[in-house]
Amino acid sequence: MPQKGGLEDAIAANSAISDIIGNQGRLTYRGIDIHELAQHSSFEETTYLLWHGTLPGAPALQRFTHAFASVRALPEPVLTMMRDFPRDATPMNALRTALSALAFYDRTAPDRSPAASAARAMRVTAQLATIVAAYEQIRRGRHPVPPESEGSHAQNFMRMLSGAEADPLVVRAMDLALILHADHELNASTFAARVTAATLADLYAAMVAAVSALSGPLHGGATEQVMTMLHTVGEPSKAAAYVEERLAAQEKIPGFGHRVYRTEDPRATHLRDMSRRLGEHVDNLRWYEISRAVEEAVMARRQLYPNVDFYSASCYFTMGIPVDLFPTIFAVSRVAGWCAHVMEQYADNRLIRPRAQYVGPQNVRYLPLDRRAQAAS
Amino acid sequence: MPQKGGLEDAIAANSAISDIIGNQGRLTYRGIDIHELAQHSSFEETTYLLWHGTLPGAPALQRFTHAFASVRALPEPVLTMMRDFPRDATPMNALRTALSALAFYDRTAPDRSPAASAARAMRVTAQLATIVAAYEQIRRGRHPVPPESEGSHAQNFMRMLSGAEADPLVVRAMDLALILHADHELNASTFAARVTAATLADLYAAMVAAVSALSGPLHGGATEQVMTMLHTVGEPSKAAAYVEERLAAQEKIPGFGHRVYRTEDPRATHLRDMSRRLGEHVDNLRWYEISRAVEEAVMARRQLYPNVDFYSASCYFTMGIPVDLFPTIFAVSRVAGWCAHVMEQYADNRLIRPRAQYVGPQNVRYLPLDRRAQAAS
Repeated sequence: MPQKGGLEDAIAANSAISDIIGNQGRLTYRGIDIHELAQHSSFEETTYLLWHGTLPGAPALQRFTHAFASVRALPEPVLTMMRDFPRDATPMNALRTALSALAFYDRTAPDRSPAASAARAMRVTAQLATIVAAYEQIRRGRHPVPPESEGSHAQNFMRMLSGAEADPLVVRAMDLALILHADHELNASTFAARVTAATLADLYAAMVAAVSALSGPLHGGATEQVMTMLHTVGEPSKAAAYVEERLAAQEKIPGFGHRVYRTEDPRATHLRDMSRRLGEHVDNLRWYEISRAVEEAVMARRQLYPNVDFYSASCYFTMGIPVDLFPTIFAVSRVAGWCAHVMEQYADNRLIRPRAQYVGPQNVRYLPLDRRAQAAS
Repeated sequence: MPQKGGLEDAIAANSAISDIIGNQGRLTYRGIDIHELAQHSSFEETTYLLWHGTLPGAPALQRFTHAFASVRALPEPVLTMMRDFPRDATPMNALRTALSALAFYDRTAPDRSPAASAARAMRVTAQLATIVAAYEQIRRGRHPVPPESEGSHAQNFMRMLSGAEADPLVVRAMDLALILHADHELNASTFAARVTAATLADLYAAMVAAVSALSGPLHGGATEQVMTMLHTVGEPSKAAAYVEERLAAQEKIPGFGHRVYRTEDPRATHLRDMSRRLGEHVDNLRWYEISRAVEEAVMARRQLYPNVDFYSASCYFTMGIPVDLFPTIFAVSRVAGWCAHVMEQYADNRLIRPRAQYVGPQNVRYLPLDRRAQAAS
């Protein structure tokens, strides 16, 4: 049976982490519906669930949250290195480079036992957020805000990022975004992490590969493009004409459609609602309303649903996050899923090594250099 | 049809770059047999072939070689950063981090036009070797040897690596190793590069993902393990007992077997011959002879053929290359193939996004925290 392009519908691994039931618009983490997690869980609890397979009891959650908060600080030489990054380095390039350097300071890195992997996953997940926030301060010529060893991950991250204690709704919005982006089966970055881990490369290598894949416009870069579009549209009344024009030019509308979902992306439901709440909270519904108008225009013309990227854009923007940081916010969350997948890959590993269909010329002769000119003429 | 594990036999892309005809033990680059390239080509010519699809005429080869040699120097801040790496950083971690930082200094990185990609591929391929050699000098407390803008890539690399002009046979051996490792269809690192490029991430991201995947013991780390084994065996007469014992313990013998080849890996043929020539040249055939004895013992018991990693080990060791650099030598070569695949991916892109088979529990309820203890008891 010939394979579809881009490995569409090919099964690359068995996984018990998340399940996407595309035709029903359902997503579960460890069997629990994303709607329940979005309403009731926290990023820490969701991360525990992704890594351990079940929700923690109260003592386990407390231990996990405490341990997670206690490993947020970066090794000092990584901060020193980041201070020398050129100020115009993109946040994703800075994150990738600093994350790669974290491996220098973990002497246990070759140990892929479950216990060592779990401890390493916790450090990397905690510290990835610290890297993102520290680079944001550094590139603006300020001192990185040191992490605190208490408070939630969302609260601490927003404080390090902005330099001030964040509004509770903004913290809740970040926590929600972190829960909703934490895993999504074999998306490209998670798949890159598993391809890497399947060579038995260490967790740092797998995370660096994942960040590399996430940096593409078709993956982590999409939310940034949505925001650019919202700025271009400018006001709700102009959305229909904009969408019309873009579709007429055969261009894609960023933030719409998904290879797996055939209905509304269940994560979009929560982000749409949060976008409205955030807008009401700051008394500026402009970005929410432009988003709604674009959504309606796309639905009317193409029956395409918004995906997770679409309402993330107006949420993050309203939360005051600089647009070029959007892909790094995705990483702050998805690192939890990447780690879960790497640990699952290690537990039952097989090298991921597909084939290419060779479509080039065959039996070409090697001509000596002095005979090539004739051959070409 | 259920998929085999590890995407075995799944077609992930069409490609006109290299073709592995596993049951015949044949490998071609752009349709030209690897045996012809091994005997008659150079790394520069092979790289041109991989990137452009045909062998260059004399003027084109001269221009290409000159341009390639002229972009070997690293941006000064990358060297400065590398001087601050801890001296015990593994060469692969140092390479990955420095390569990631190269992206900071390329303002054209988002431009994925064929011309910009080709120029960037040339810089990255040239500079990857410079990074490997510079870090080797730095970690030994010496000054990096600056690249020269003339001479072959193999010659220049060996000079930067060792700090002295290399013996012509050693230069030829490096050139041969670079040709033989330059591409191999969708091996794990190349596949990681394509998965990354398929999100339209830039060439640096794709190369960093590839280095990440190459760092695993089942991929670029295999040659290092072969050398460890040769040391453990110690002398040819002990090979049979060693192999017997290891197989009895259900352990794999590093450097043997391949998912695709069912006969001798055609690259091993040339490396076996070079291993002998290098041994004769330095009047020390010990590593070659232990390798031969291990090969015979494995063949007698398991009918497994040596792969590209097996004789690379004794070659590199006899060439005086430190064992922990072996995976970086693989990268110095394979970067040519990675770039070819990324350019091919960009030219006809589709996101690479397979599925997982969900094998976990379904319809799990979200229990509030205070009810979980009862549930668990």
